[in-house]
Amino acid sequence: MIEIDEKDLHYWLEHVKIYANNGKVADYIPALANQQPEINATAFYPIGDKEVACAGQADYSFTIQSVSKVLTLALALIQHGEQAVFSRVGKEPSSDPFYSIQKLEVEKPSKPLNPMINAGALAVTNMIRGRGSDEMVQEILNLVRLLADDSSIDYDEEVARSEFETAFLNRALSYFMKQNGIITGSVEELLDVYTKQCAITVNVKQLARIAAVFANDGKDPDTNQPLLPSHVARVCKTFMVTCGMYDASGTFAINVGIPAKSGVSGCIMGVIKESGGLAVFGPALDEQGNSVVGMHLLKDLADDKRWSIF
Amino acid sequence: MIEIDEKDLHYWLEHVKIYANNGKVADYIPALANQQPEINATAFYPIGDKEVACAGQADYSFTIQSVSKVLTLALALIQHGEQAVFSRVGKEPSSDPFYSIQKLEVEKPSKPLNPMINAGALAVTNMIRGRGSDEMVQEILNLVRLLADDSSIDYDEEVARSEFETAFLNRALSYFMKQNGIITGSVEELLDVYTKQCAITVNVKQLARIAAVFANDGKDPDTNQPLLPSHVARVCKTFMVTCGMYDASGTFAINVGIPAKSGVSGCIMGVIKESGGLAVFGPALDEQGNSVVGMHLLKDLADDKRWSIF
Amino acid sequence: MIEIDEKDLHYWLEHVKIYANNGKVADYIPALANQQPEINATAFYPIGDKEVACAGQADYSFTIQSVSKVLTLALALIQHGEQAVFSRVGKEPSSDPFYSIQKLEVEKPSKPLNPMINAGALAVTNMIRGRGSDEMVQEILNLVRLLADDSSIDYDEEVARSEFETAFLNRALSYFMKQNGIITGSVEELLDVYTKQCAITVNVKQLARIAAVFANDGKDPDTNQPLLPSHVARVCKTFMVTCGMYDASGTFAINVGIPAKSGVSGCIMGVIKESGGLAVFGPALDEQGNSVVGMHLLKDLADDKRWSIF
Amino acid sequence: MIEIDEKDLHYWLEHVKIYANNGKVADYIPALANQQPEINATAFYPIGDKEVACAGQADYSFTIQSVSKVLTLALALIQHGEQAVFSRVGKEPSSDPFYSIQKLEVEKPSKPLNPMINAGALAVTNMIRGRGSDEMVQEILNLVRLLADDSSIDYDEEVARSEFETAFLNRALSYFMKQNGIITGSVEELLDVYTKQCAITVNVKQLARIAAVFANDGKDPDTNQPLLPSHVARVCKTFMVTCGMYDASGTFAINVGIPAKSGVSGCIMGVIKESGGLAVFGPALDEQGNSVVGMHLLKDLADDKRWSIF
Repeated sequence: MIEIDEKDLHYWLEHVKIYANNGKVADYIPALANQQPEINATAFYPIGDKEVACAGQADYSFTIQSVSKVLTLALALIQHGEQAVFSRVGKEPSSDPFYSIQKLEVEKPSKPLNPMINAGALAVTNMIRGRGSDEMVQEILNLVRLLADDSSIDYDEEVARSEFETAFLNRALSYFMKQNGIITGSVEELLDVYTKQCAITVNVKQLARIAAVFANDGKDPDTNQPLLPSHVARVCKTFMVTCGMYDASGTFAINVGIPAKSGVSGCIMGVIKESGGLAVFGPALDEQGNSVVGMHLLKDLADDKRWSIF
Repeated sequence: MIEIDEKDLHYWLEHVKIYANNGKVADYIPALANQQPEINATAFYPIGDKEVACAGQADYSFTIQSVSKVLTLALALIQHGEQAVFSRVGKEPSSDPFYSIQKLEVEKPSKPLNPMINAGALAVTNMIRGRGSDEMVQEILNLVRLLADDSSIDYDEEVARSEFETAFLNRALSYFMKQNGIITGSVEELLDVYTKQCAITVNVKQLARIAAVFANDGKDPDTNQPLLPSHVARVCKTFMVTCGMYDASGTFAINVGIPAKSGVSGCIMGVIKESGGLAVFGPALDEQGNSVVGMHLLKDLADDKRWSIF
Repeated sequence: MIEIDEKDLHYWLEHVKIYANNGKVADYIPALANQQPEINATAFYPIGDKEVACAGQADYSFTIQSVSKVLTLALALIQHGEQAVFSRVGKEPSSDPFYSIQKLEVEKPSKPLNPMINAGALAVTNMIRGRGSDEMVQEILNLVRLLADDSSIDYDEEVARSEFETAFLNRALSYFMKQNGIITGSVEELLDVYTKQCAITVNVKQLARIAAVFANDGKDPDTNQPLLPSHVARVCKTFMVTCGMYDASGTFAINVGIPAKSGVSGCIMGVIKESGGLAVFGPALDEQGNSVVGMHLLKDLADDKRWSIF
Repeated sequence: MIEIDEKDLHYWLEHVKIYANNGKVADYIPALANQQPEINATAFYPIGDKEVACAGQADYSFTIQSVSKVLTLALALIQHGEQAVFSRVGKEPSSDPFYSIQKLEVEKPSKPLNPMINAGALAVTNMIRGRGSDEMVQEILNLVRLLADDSSIDYDEEVARSEFETAFLNRALSYFMKQNGIITGSVEELLDVYTKQCAITVNVKQLARIAAVFANDGKDPDTNQPLLPSHVARVCKTFMVTCGMYDASGTFAINVGIPAKSGVSGCIMGVIKESGGLAVFGPALDEQGNSVVGMHLLKDLADDKRWSIF
């Protein structure tokens, strides 16, 4: 097992926080635009040891944004199985940006390439069970609370509303997929669920624990009780490697080499095989939409600790 | 002036009606799917002679569908001028199908290529003046009634509602353009206007008169009173040649060579320079969405009468 | 008949020559890169009157470049007929740049969209009859000499060689089409013919006469003897309108409205229906690759003389 | 260490050989088209134990085709370093087929997405050191012989010539990249090297040993002597996961989860972490160009032995 402690985290976070100056807080979502670029935090949740290590503003809460794509994928796989899920969404990486619509038109039959781009994530959320959007959101929250071992986790209503009101691109993607039978039912209701799942709020300690469950093949990192079927955990980790970091996924696999998923709020969760879960937060983003501080921290730690799975 | 009389029309319509068997009634719009493929009609409205000539079921009413794109373009040009209109929509033909969304993503800055594809037509309709959709529809209806010289013309509520309920692709296009600032305001309201303009109902005699106004450079074919500024009529005719027949426009320019615009209900209006307006109806469509009977009739007449402007 | 005389040409050329400052001489073809941007010339060859009118440096010789696309199309249509030619190349305008390769991959079956983009022009040249490239070039030269009524016309060996040596993109297009069966035989031989046809040298007076043949429906503008079948002339003029000015063709149709073809040397030939042929030269190009001075001259003359065919 | 013996290989190969009926021998390369679909073979080369295990026609020789892409990448990384190599070729997976040219035009600056698609592999081969193609081929052969521990390995002249004569698509890709400065020098010479590297001939035992070097982080699986720098081995393995199986790479990562590279001759090499190298051969291919028998064998073995790295 690879060891990492608070001293490590402090050292490396201190080392990379300067890079925040190279990034830009996401400005296309009004509720995210006023995040402070100088805030940063990281946490490591080890398997088999309840002590989470952290550094920076570790109690600062942020919305998980695209990290939710992994969690709803896990939920959909549990509820419907691989065959049903992958009849609606593909398994291949895309070299296009996460918000791209082109491939939906080019590919015949039309199907989003993978569940980590927006189109695919919307198709996955559309499959979540529940009568109405409230029940669907509740299902998602239940899973997040289970993985984070914290029943107080909820979504941020203001962020959700702000994203709902400006989600024109996600509406375009959804209506295009509705035309092609990938999405069924009300697009407005789907957007309601989707913007709420993106607005689920955690801190780095909670996010590190979620990552630790994946690192432990779906089992509780403390008790080893199964929380997710191991094959579901494996499928999710595979997607995190091939498509988790937007259109920088290939580069990240070369440079870092661990399953990871980022969100445009500036968070990244990283899965360290048989060791634990790492979370980083820093809202300044690079051009692909990944946290600059997070990317540097993961690169340096992965080099130092030889984390690459390859 | 090129002469054409009822005998001509009867002869040629009789000659081509067999081709209806090669086409298929549009089935993606529920309200159009039950049109009878064997219905057909044609009419010619000459300049300077109030006698319209016709053949087939000339009193049969149909919705104008994409023919409305020419009329709202004329209205937007009158209301806002070329500069304002072409800041929102381009002037170049597209080799993609009329419903395509790809180029909106590829082109920087994002702008629909021309006003004859759906994206461009939606952007044009979005510019029509009026407080609310009712006033906007009224503006469009007023122009159509003026050009057709018939104040009884209205839209078909059932067709409009049917298209409104299934217009997922047009919603996708509209939300994508709203994201990029091409479209402003409510997408649902825009769709309300757009589906009503498409559902405006005419017969071939009325449509032939509308075409005759364009043939007469914007002037009333009977009285020579100006109904449209001549440069607006010219711009509309140019678009009809370069982009009027969907992605078969280039082929149509070679084979027929006149300004024309088709609608998926199965209608085509053709503009014969200094001579008059021709309308054809036949709901069986070819692969590009153009009336099979209409295409054959126009080809044969254009060959026989040497109508090509080239 | 629309009258235009030397006074007209002097006046308008004087008026627009200042715009040369807004353009840039083509620099991607070494042999063109050292053309003088301040050189300009124009000529009008009327139908039925042997007197050509001209202004500027009317004896200055330049290579015809893409204007040759129209002439080889005419030759291929004469040699093989419409059906054979259009089995290898389409009739639809493209909104992509003239050198684009994408659509060859996207379209199934693969076929260049039209004969005015490079891919399509290469496919057309590949069809010209002749044993070996020398005979093929001779066939093309013979047609050009016939239309220009000048047997001294030849190609510029230095320009041809320069283009041959740097024609990597045209080789890419040709090999791609060879893979798909659109092009047969040796690509190097095809490039030899193609770069020589582009390097055929004329002055504005000769080019205006070529245009006048098209304006006179394929007949000699002086003697009315048929030089091209009228339907071949018509097909060529149609392509000049829908695709003649690269990806600015739609805009040119709106703004000017006559069949025209430009070349990156800075020449444009324009066809004025039943009146005559116009040629302009000015090597400074706009972003689409069209002569800036030429575009302004054509726009101003077309406005003043009401030349638009629409 | 995961154990696998000849009994295992026999059992599983027997189990999956029936699937050859679902595939089709590559017919676009003449020299491959007459391979026998019923031939198949597999071998496992363990780390730390000189005994290679095999089943089927293990002495049958085949050309490595695209497997060579991994080996020239390793060579280029050794010769020039990551920075130089990745200035010419990207690191991102592509959802397009391996032969696709579109992205080269769309991406600005133009750069092949990764070294596992043809465009990227050609750019990598173009970097191999050597005066003339013979020296370059020699460099590549030297590396292959070193990794396979067999100095008799050579390329098949007939296959190389056959591919050279029909490599129109690779010429198109190369000329397109030459236009954009990604490729320098003679395209014909590059194609000479490239078709020879693809025609290097091995059997499954030799290929399994090459894979075992990667499994052993670049060290000789028998002696632990370093043959490749470990970071070069890691970069190659990462690309094998994200892009190794053409546009089925994402699906393969989910279903199998090991670094692997396939060739259209019907071979696949698979890297089993800290355990050894696996090779499979079976010339019947699926739609993505991967060996049907190979894909089934790898899937079944990976499931049974829990080989996924995720």
